[in-house]
Amino acid sequence: MSEDRYQKGIKYLKNMNPDSFRILEKNLEDVAPDMARYVAEFAYGEIYSRPGLDLKTRELVTIASITTLGSAQTQLKSHIQGALNVGCSPQEIIEVIIQMAVYAGFPKALNGLFSASEVFNERNEKIEK
Amino acid sequence: MSEDRYQKGIKYLKNMNPDSFRILEKNLEDVAPDMARYVAEFAYGEIYSRPGLDLKTRELVTIASITTLGSAQTQLKSHIQGALNVGCSPQEIIEVIIQMAVYAGFPKALNGLFSASEVFNERNEKIEK
Amino acid sequence: MSEDRYQKGIKYLKNMNPDSFRILEKNLEDVAPDMARYVAEFAYGEIYSRPGLDLKTRELVTIASITTLGSAQTQLKSHIQGALNVGCSPQEIIEVIIQMAVYAGFPKALNGLFSASEVFNERNEKIEK
Amino acid sequence: MSEDRYQKGIKYLKNMNPDSFRILEKNLEDVAPDMARYVAEFAYGEIYSRPGLDLKTRELVTIASITTLGSAQTQLKSHIQGALNVGCSPQEIIEVIIQMAVYAGFPKALNGLFSASEVFNERNEKIEK
Amino acid sequence: MSEDRYQKGIKYLKNMNPDSFRILEKNLEDVAPDMARYVAEFAYGEIYSRPGLDLKTRELVTIASITTLGSAQTQLKSHIQGALNVGCSPQEIIEVIIQMAVYAGFPKALNGLFSASEVFNERNEKIEK
Amino acid sequence: MSEDRYQKGIKYLKNMNPDSFRILEKNLEDVAPDMARYVAEFAYGEIYSRPGLDLKTRELVTIASITTLGSAQTQLKSHIQGALNVGCSPQEIIEVIIQMAVYAGFPKALNGLFSASEVFNERNEKIEK
Repeated sequence: MSEDRYQKGIKYLKNMNPDSFRILEKNLEDVAPDMARYVAEFAYGEIYSRPGLDLKTRELVTIASITTLGSAQTQLKSHIQGALNVGCSPQEIIEVIIQMAVYAGFPKALNGLFSASEVFNERNEKIEK
Repeated sequence: MSEDRYQKGIKYLKNMNPDSFRILEKNLEDVAPDMARYVAEFAYGEIYSRPGLDLKTRELVTIASITTLGSAQTQLKSHIQGALNVGCSPQEIIEVIIQMAVYAGFPKALNGLFSASEVFNERNEKIEK
Repeated sequence: MSEDRYQKGIKYLKNMNPDSFRILEKNLEDVAPDMARYVAEFAYGEIYSRPGLDLKTRELVTIASITTLGSAQTQLKSHIQGALNVGCSPQEIIEVIIQMAVYAGFPKALNGLFSASEVFNERNEKIEK
Repeated sequence: MSEDRYQKGIKYLKNMNPDSFRILEKNLEDVAPDMARYVAEFAYGEIYSRPGLDLKTRELVTIASITTLGSAQTQLKSHIQGALNVGCSPQEIIEVIIQMAVYAGFPKALNGLFSASEVFNERNEKIEK
Repeated sequence: MSEDRYQKGIKYLKNMNPDSFRILEKNLEDVAPDMARYVAEFAYGEIYSRPGLDLKTRELVTIASITTLGSAQTQLKSHIQGALNVGCSPQEIIEVIIQMAVYAGFPKALNGLFSASEVFNERNEKIEK
Repeated sequence: MSEDRYQKGIKYLKNMNPDSFRILEKNLEDVAPDMARYVAEFAYGEIYSRPGLDLKTRELVTIASITTLGSAQTQLKSHIQGALNVGCSPQEIIEVIIQMAVYAGFPKALNGLFSASEVFNERNEKIEK
């Protein structure tokens, strides 16, 4: 195992999205605890910690990708949380998802907006108009 | 028709990716010229021209989305061109595509990197190491 | 903005699916009201209002596409409503979705049929045998 | 084996798209001849031969589905041939594919239009304007 | 209709997953009873009954495919049931789904694991550690 | 970096598919050498080297997943090579891909079979009948 990589990932996760990771670890502990480790070690310890792109942009491109997948609303909401946590504004997140109408089609963009709306309501975030 | 919206889109396209749009118009002129108009009018005149997100970020989230689709390499290369044209560095583009390995899987990320490699070679772009 | 295009889209929506659009507008009003406008203006004002294909066929190909996406059951049900509203029979809708087993696989076709079943039950539509 | 079903499928294929099926059989004969049989027996003998939807509409919804998949251009071109063979006009086919921009995104719709353009050129089909 | 093929499929289904098929038949009886017949006749009577691959491997590759689709959790859970019924261990099923992180991305693999967890809980299956 | 994990992955790759990895490393060396490292370290050093599932089954479920993606024929052919290298028979590979017709639709299954046919021809592999 790569202990350093894991610790680095956990540090990023604590900063970016501690709640989602805690829930993930809990949900996986009986079936696949290694999978939570891979999220920490590979996704965060390797990828999000790479230089060359700031965390705000990393969260926005993740939101673009998961909106395009169309079938992972739990993960989409988790990354909308993460994007807000690293300093993206609600408006920036909305702009990314609206733009997905062009590339992934209107149904997936609409479902992405509904997920964003849920997260903003929970956190009492306001969109500037 | 929305003449203003179309002219606005064309202005954005001339700045962002004039070559790709010229080829697109040519390829569509016999079968669906309206589709080229929608690209100008809706995708560029409406979406890319929205405030709230800079063009560099808009191109990077588009690259994330098309890499995730996995089956539109021509459009991916066109947007890698567009990203370079609006000021993204080759390294930023590569970072976005590598990150897609986590969200869209390794095969799509690899194919995205091969497309980026082709565009960089054509334009003689170098990746800083 | 393209006022004419918007008004044309609203006219189509009032005819084809007023309830779905009202809910959509409501759900988007706090996060992305422009997105509801794009649905009216682009999807309905531009695309559904094009000549060359009747509205019944337009709704059936939309049902084929969303069944193939597989992850947008809300939009699928909305278009099953729309198809019924413009004169498609329940049987025609079922035939389209069954056929998707060949092109999009059995799981997506089955989920499409379950969505159709829900809509038909709500509206008390009967399938002729 | 279901001999009747197979013969019924072959009859439909001879009417709808004899060339594509001949090529398919040839390409599969060394690796998976049963797969060609399933195309005849299940896709054509069972599905296309069902009552309740005419063959023109069946081919148009297939075109919608394969355009939405985005990664099966050979099969898309084969069904554009099939659509023309059962009496769809080039314009109807183009309308279906343009509409996919709304549901599957612009990149897939554009690639669908390029495939249609290739087929129309081979057959010297003209779009009425 | 192919009576033999249907009976053969029913025999396989009774052995592999009788509960899921009973529910499926019930859910389809008012809208599309033929679709339940196709599941029996084509999916089970033709495909699962082919020689050349044992049923355990057939269920594991199905789980890989549906996890990759990402949007058919009901069918995924039904095939996790089927895999257990034909003798796959919970650990083997988990290994397949974890591996999908590499090919279909982490969000789809995670959702697959959550579905497996639900099925294992219902059946009181334990993962060996 | 996780040196051990990387060396373990390279050992697996040398056994499973040395040619594909050499080409991959070459294609990525100018744009994203880290991505080749992640393939070795994460995909092979972490995932394929896990206990609980033999390599033959691991390659077959990968083939199922990539056939379902539908848009990564290079990677599909590389894993068909890998499957043969770890002892899968051509017939087992064909059975997996045929079965994908049920879950991912006929177009993707057909394209998978064409890719298998190319690999078998290159290696002069024969299907037993």
